[in-house]
Amino acid sequence: MKNTRVTRAALGRLPAYLKFLKSLPEDSGKYISATRIANGLGYGEVMVRKDLNAASGEGKPKIGYVTEDLIAVIEEHLGLQKKSLAVLVGAGKLGLALYDYSGFEDYGLEIAAAFDNNPERTGQLPSGKTVLPVSELCGFCKERNIKLGIITVPRSSAQDACDALIESGITAIWSFAPKTLTVPDGVLVQYENLALSLAHINKQTSLLSEQSDHTD
Amino acid sequence: MKNTRVTRAALGRLPAYLKFLKSLPEDSGKYISATRIANGLGYGEVMVRKDLNAASGEGKPKIGYVTEDLIAVIEEHLGLQKKSLAVLVGAGKLGLALYDYSGFEDYGLEIAAAFDNNPERTGQLPSGKTVLPVSELCGFCKERNIKLGIITVPRSSAQDACDALIESGITAIWSFAPKTLTVPDGVLVQYENLALSLAHINKQTSLLSEQSDHTD
Repeated sequence: MKNTRVTRAALGRLPAYLKFLKSLPEDSGKYISATRIANGLGYGEVMVRKDLNAASGEGKPKIGYVTEDLIAVIEEHLGLQKKSLAVLVGAGKLGLALYDYSGFEDYGLEIAAAFDNNPERTGQLPSGKTVLPVSELCGFCKERNIKLGIITVPRSSAQDACDALIESGITAIWSFAPKTLTVPDGVLVQYENLALSLAHINKQTSLLSEQSDHTD
Repeated sequence: MKNTRVTRAALGRLPAYLKFLKSLPEDSGKYISATRIANGLGYGEVMVRKDLNAASGEGKPKIGYVTEDLIAVIEEHLGLQKKSLAVLVGAGKLGLALYDYSGFEDYGLEIAAAFDNNPERTGQLPSGKTVLPVSELCGFCKERNIKLGIITVPRSSAQDACDALIESGITAIWSFAPKTLTVPDGVLVQYENLALSLAHINKQTSLLSEQSDHTD
């Protein structure tokens, strides 16, 4: 695997490339060109070349990539050869929606367990999955060497959840709580502000309609 | 209001500026400087100056901004003077989590109603809010002149939901379904791929740990 940074946008397209490559008929030859992939998916050729180059290096001029190798390298980028497990703290509505969301599989990700401090929320869910008490978080993570944590608790308990995750050996946190978290060096935090996403769309569309008002 | 584009990151900080300005004691004078705001919030001064400049224009040298005016302009950017309503299609787990999420208020946004095709999902929720049948979507939106739509249905029904929103006069769509939507010119679509967000964090943290493996 090439060790360059595949951009977030390119990463988002890798599942589509993979699906396309895997759907090729068996007699379609050993090689595949970026042009053929671009045409098959209706993507721009320049973008496809850039994506594949970042993921796998340049293809052979006029020949392209060995299909099998390209599949392997994309699967590696997507982490499909070795599933990554995550834990989630906060089994409220949003937490349970994420816990049940099947789309993580496309990226080799799985939320292995959800945790909550509220005893009314722990136990088995209708889906068969289980919500565990936060007291079991540390043992659970260390036993399975889990490094990814998701925070879906309210603002007021976000730092506590964060501290519990860090004590459990988590090194990357995805937080939905609208609060800046204090973490030691080497721990990655990414904030997800859903309200801000909608506000941003609203703002863009107001600007567009203002512009068209001016030009009308 | 200055008509420049406030970046998404700056927009994300406006609620903090607003909260700070509103918490100033009454005897704190007519003016406020960017330096004082930066110190009060623990933000970098350069960033604060840039944010306020984009939102309101430059302050007076050595004096700063008229506090009252700055409050008004930030409220205008956040759309707090006139609440923006949105509708949501797909009252599954994620849809209901969003429908119930209180964080939208900070940005003057409100999900006015949720809609679903499944009769088992329509009716009153424990929160008191209501899920309506999709057949009522068009009338609901047109009556209230709603322009913002959220899609939280599965991939297979995303285009149908999108078509129904467009028929209802929606011009900006926020879609959580992993599917490219076909929309007429002038309609803005923003995709939210939650699985991709987690995959991206996972990838960043793997790269970081690889780097530290090499330097150890």
